[in-house]
Amino acid sequence: MKGVILGINPRATVIDITHEVPPQAVRHAAFILAEACPYFPPGTVHAAVVDPGMGSERRAVAVQTPMAIFVGPDNGLFSYLLANQQTNRLVAVHLTNPYYWRAEVSSTFHGRDIFAPVAAHLSLGVAIDELGELMPASSLVMLPHLRPEVRPDGSIIGHVLRADRFGNLITDIAAEQLCGALTIEVAGRRIAGLKPTYAAAERGELVALIGSTDTLEIAVREGNAAQELRTRAGAEVIVRRVR
Amino acid sequence: MKGVILGINPRATVIDITHEVPPQAVRHAAFILAEACPYFPPGTVHAAVVDPGMGSERRAVAVQTPMAIFVGPDNGLFSYLLANQQTNRLVAVHLTNPYYWRAEVSSTFHGRDIFAPVAAHLSLGVAIDELGELMPASSLVMLPHLRPEVRPDGSIIGHVLRADRFGNLITDIAAEQLCGALTIEVAGRRIAGLKPTYAAAERGELVALIGSTDTLEIAVREGNAAQELRTRAGAEVIVRRVR
Amino acid sequence: MKGVILGINPRATVIDITHEVPPQAVRHAAFILAEACPYFPPGTVHAAVVDPGMGSERRAVAVQTPMAIFVGPDNGLFSYLLANQQTNRLVAVHLTNPYYWRAEVSSTFHGRDIFAPVAAHLSLGVAIDELGELMPASSLVMLPHLRPEVRPDGSIIGHVLRADRFGNLITDIAAEQLCGALTIEVAGRRIAGLKPTYAAAERGELVALIGSTDTLEIAVREGNAAQELRTRAGAEVIVRRVR
Repeated sequence: MKGVILGINPRATVIDITHEVPPQAVRHAAFILAEACPYFPPGTVHAAVVDPGMGSERRAVAVQTPMAIFVGPDNGLFSYLLANQQTNRLVAVHLTNPYYWRAEVSSTFHGRDIFAPVAAHLSLGVAIDELGELMPASSLVMLPHLRPEVRPDGSIIGHVLRADRFGNLITDIAAEQLCGALTIEVAGRRIAGLKPTYAAAERGELVALIGSTDTLEIAVREGNAAQELRTRAGAEVIVRRVR
Repeated sequence: MKGVILGINPRATVIDITHEVPPQAVRHAAFILAEACPYFPPGTVHAAVVDPGMGSERRAVAVQTPMAIFVGPDNGLFSYLLANQQTNRLVAVHLTNPYYWRAEVSSTFHGRDIFAPVAAHLSLGVAIDELGELMPASSLVMLPHLRPEVRPDGSIIGHVLRADRFGNLITDIAAEQLCGALTIEVAGRRIAGLKPTYAAAERGELVALIGSTDTLEIAVREGNAAQELRTRAGAEVIVRRVR
Repeated sequence: MKGVILGINPRATVIDITHEVPPQAVRHAAFILAEACPYFPPGTVHAAVVDPGMGSERRAVAVQTPMAIFVGPDNGLFSYLLANQQTNRLVAVHLTNPYYWRAEVSSTFHGRDIFAPVAAHLSLGVAIDELGELMPASSLVMLPHLRPEVRPDGSIIGHVLRADRFGNLITDIAAEQLCGALTIEVAGRRIAGLKPTYAAAERGELVALIGSTDTLEIAVREGNAAQELRTRAGAEVIVRRVR
């Protein structure tokens, strides 16, 4: 993909966000994109691909937001990114114009043959609507359960979005939902309240805290929460208010 | 290696193709190079090193093709790349001119001390024949069994070249060899015919298909063929025609 | 971190030295920095972070040497780099000026919110003393046992600094300490003398040699010394002279 990009735009600055997303883990990748992309300069073109089940019926798409442009499969990969965007400020295009693809398109590697060349052309200033047919942003595939559920009793049912490389569990429960005294339940364990930092915990202690993405994070100080709790992306996390 | 390159050519664009080749897996690395390099811009300089057994008797070489320049040990690393090239269009040089090396050359890290600085000087336009002594391209070390064998009965004996990160087994049997009705045998399993895409298989199904490099690939839909078949680079793959 | 850097300095060349340091392995990271940094061009800005226990009491610092500038936590990460420097040629600054940070600083990700933007501003030519308060370089946190101990009988007690990806054990015993006939003891095994290169060993043989960083290295030819000896960073290595 990088060779293809540099062949089209030799001045492109190509940055890897990650190559560590597990196969088929669309939700994990979607969350990483939403975490990382806001920190890139305005106008950055993000090419993403996670599903080797390409060549299937999924559309190839590009989506322009006020801040950046995204290129990839229409399989929910942009769900977290787009969840907070006003639909009328998005331009979505079904990538149907082979003029901007590699001359030969394989059935298995759309990243190299479609997404990379399209991203490179976008970085050179090609307008998004030259790449194919405009489509309503509302028709883009979105993952279910993008937000935690708040129950009538004030408890919050959220989910683990991913484990980071330290085994810390990143959840979808936002910092601002976590006020007052509370307990956190995950994988049959109960944690009383939030710690301000990792360092405030004892070595080996299971803690909840506000992570670097301003969401609830479950960690073991100098340990691996994902391994200790045998928990990964998708696991339920319940926050209860203590009265 | 990157620090050395940028010290010589601060404007160099340095791209990692991979750091995931297992130790000593020269064939795996040779195949990755042949897969990736055609997608880079013409004139790209590729520096490659796989064998920590450097400092041994292997020559350090550079090879110029009509499309690119390759720098590395003469241990077969460029076999697949060069297999399709006309020898008379190649320029090969034994790297013997220390003027283009780091001032101090360690006995174990030729990548940093010879290949990186030589590649950086090439990227600045130094002519390949300044780097050492011209040698016949035909004297470069080539790996054995670079192509599958076609038996008189029409069956093809090929090999697994590598497993990708999803556990898909990439073979050396070209798409154009796979016509008509056929069965594929690998690791004691038999697969009937080719699927057009991963998505055409059932979840967990063992399938054969044409992969992104236009060769036969063995995969398990949303699974890991390398693990399931306990198979890796070098394993035999037999394609038989069905009459 | 890369997005933040490129947002401040779009022309920055951003290079990854490694993302493979185990969590909390400050000594491992400190050694990698000392190994790699001398090969980068003069004036390079190195941003490093290893300890997710940030947000704790550790200071954020920048240190300028005659060759480069280092940005990161004051937790010993720069110990090996600075061990050979004359203190009076160093400028150390406690990073207290939020003007050069991201507007919002999280409690867990100082790499992104402080070190990355500070490094980017340094790469644009901001003077180090604008970043905070000057501090004596001698007050920087240094790791203990930075050098091997030489006993009265001439034997040397050193340590394994890290295992590389091939399982070779890199030690802190310098090449120039290894003269004459000697034996090396590590993990209950004894090795007689040094081999000139890996290739001089038998396949599977446990050997000692001078590695690419000009220090004693323990390796298994085409094998994995770290696994075979069940040894990692911190293990004692004893060199005895043979009379």
